[in-house]
Amino acid sequence: VTESSLTAGAADRGRFRHFMLKEIHEQPRAVAETLEGRLAPDGVLEGIMGPGSEEILAQVKSVQILACGTSYHAGLVASYWIEGLLGLPCRVEVASEFRYRRHAVLPDCLLVTISQSGETADSLAALRQAREDDYLGSLAICNVPESSLVRESDMVLMTHAGPEIGVASTKAFTTQLVALFLLVLSLGRHHGLAPARAQSFVEQLRALPAALEKVLALDTPIERLAMGLADKHHALFLGRGCHYPIALEGALKLKEISYIHAEAYPAGELKHGPLALVDADMPVVVVAPNNHLLEKLKSNLEEVRARGGHLMVFTDDVAALGSDGAIQSLAVPPVDDWLSAIIHTVPLQLLSYHTAILKGTDVDQPRNLAKSVTVE
Amino acid sequence: VTESSLTAGAADRGRFRHFMLKEIHEQPRAVAETLEGRLAPDGVLEGIMGPGSEEILAQVKSVQILACGTSYHAGLVASYWIEGLLGLPCRVEVASEFRYRRHAVLPDCLLVTISQSGETADSLAALRQAREDDYLGSLAICNVPESSLVRESDMVLMTHAGPEIGVASTKAFTTQLVALFLLVLSLGRHHGLAPARAQSFVEQLRALPAALEKVLALDTPIERLAMGLADKHHALFLGRGCHYPIALEGALKLKEISYIHAEAYPAGELKHGPLALVDADMPVVVVAPNNHLLEKLKSNLEEVRARGGHLMVFTDDVAALGSDGAIQSLAVPPVDDWLSAIIHTVPLQLLSYHTAILKGTDVDQPRNLAKSVTVE
Repeated sequence: VTESSLTAGAADRGRFRHFMLKEIHEQPRAVAETLEGRLAPDGVLEGIMGPGSEEILAQVKSVQILACGTSYHAGLVASYWIEGLLGLPCRVEVASEFRYRRHAVLPDCLLVTISQSGETADSLAALRQAREDDYLGSLAICNVPESSLVRESDMVLMTHAGPEIGVASTKAFTTQLVALFLLVLSLGRHHGLAPARAQSFVEQLRALPAALEKVLALDTPIERLAMGLADKHHALFLGRGCHYPIALEGALKLKEISYIHAEAYPAGELKHGPLALVDADMPVVVVAPNNHLLEKLKSNLEEVRARGGHLMVFTDDVAALGSDGAIQSLAVPPVDDWLSAIIHTVPLQLLSYHTAILKGTDVDQPRNLAKSVTVE
Repeated sequence: VTESSLTAGAADRGRFRHFMLKEIHEQPRAVAETLEGRLAPDGVLEGIMGPGSEEILAQVKSVQILACGTSYHAGLVASYWIEGLLGLPCRVEVASEFRYRRHAVLPDCLLVTISQSGETADSLAALRQAREDDYLGSLAICNVPESSLVRESDMVLMTHAGPEIGVASTKAFTTQLVALFLLVLSLGRHHGLAPARAQSFVEQLRALPAALEKVLALDTPIERLAMGLADKHHALFLGRGCHYPIALEGALKLKEISYIHAEAYPAGELKHGPLALVDADMPVVVVAPNNHLLEKLKSNLEEVRARGGHLMVFTDDVAALGSDGAIQSLAVPPVDDWLSAIIHTVPLQLLSYHTAILKGTDVDQPRNLAKSVTVE
């Protein structure tokens, strides 16, 4: 097992005021290290999940993902990827729900657990319980090589994020997404992902660190956006498709460190209830890359604007979105739509960070929360 | 098609101040009418979903449910029932997400759409699109016989809630749950639900209207609980298992008509983020029947209490829960745990109603919302 060269320790906070900010800025390197040694020019290398893993992957006809908190959001993104790119049924469930109910197992199913620490009590218990079920095998996506989750899984795909000290997970999440995309490419080799497409994804994965650097350079405009959030008590986060889980993760970050009550919805659900909450005191943060869903999203934005809601929109095409007094938009670098979920994560992390700084909360040690939830 | 004898019209608000309150109180009768003519002493009658339906049900190996808003929550409850009682894989998805992504179809899958009006744009579009997919057949659970959803589905199971005028759905939801339970029993006949168990469920279904009357009699203590909510700006709703979607629905009701920002979580996720929000200004509403999850829930409640959070707990066993200054608990009649999801819905409806009355909002016509979302 290769460990990350990223290290931690009080002395290592370096030029950063908080571990969280340092870890946000480490993401280009953490992503590069998670890709390191796993990519060939035309696809992902064989066997990156360990001996015998290709035999299991070849038989997979469905995927069940189990995780908690931020890792659950990474699993949700992966479910859009796995169904959208491979056509394999993929289910994702919160581990604490899965483990206490009788659940059906899909045919020829790969069980995937995701946990930064590899010691998350519910995820570990769910994995142990699933041994009684008829899964093809289990894969752990994890950041700690010596963890229980890694030891007890048939296959392992380590994230090489390095130690994460901030309680609110940042680089662990983006490297989980990268690892999950490597899983998609590995499955794709056995399940009809066109070689040219795989090759194109490899090129785009290699370009991710540089794109992430460009997002980090948006720190100052994001700090300005945070000024519009810091005096609010609520926020609504919207996204569609694989960007909906990114909205969920953005809302969770804001909750965790700024104590602002942020909630995410798939944008299409807005009219089915949450729109009643929207007024001038409820800013709405939108993840809106310029894809086939943009027109739908724009109509959601109109509804918010018409009710006096203030919009903060993260997009990769400000021109396509339009802009006026009620909308503040910020453009991230355009990348392939599937991978743009990874890119869109980072501005939301920075938005939460700066909002928390303005509010004066304890960013690295938010109240009531522990880094790893090792008890139920 | 039998129509409900429940009628509507401004003159019919009767002794009730609002349609919503009238519709909440109509639930025992609406549930009875939805059961009417569908039950034999030992199970559900054959063919209640129309000609040819039993042939389709016999082949079902999985279920995909699509819906929006409140109907989506009904679908979530059903997924716990279908997997827990029948062992059939069941997926539930928001229709606006499903229709815009490439999705895999489970083997031998029954497609179920749920919509009160039968004209919900996203649900209808998802049904139309799913015709291209390889489903065994489609079932509509709907309250309006002449609706598009009913016309365009292979099978139909009408809810007999009668016209629902209040924008916030109440009796439509509980009758959807009853219809979904009839689906479970119908599927159960072909998929190994023990006859004795089916017979016991039939008896309990027949007892539901009387149990619902008992819940309605709790109006005054629930009104007292509402006083603890009306001056708050936030609330957290918690549940586990098939009571988690009931928490989701309770939070949605409160959002819709009182404009309080209420959010629901599966209780096991509390420590993975939302606990940071909990303080004396964030009341926590808990759906906590005395089942195998109660001990887990009690430990979640301890976490909330330790952070100064105020707890309102709906249970069927106050003694098992304990009580002190930080907890207000209220007991509903104990029924079978699976069906208690239906029973636990009603106190949350009343809680939202009384909170909205105290706040002086327009209960039947909440701001920004329409009764049926017939456009995207």
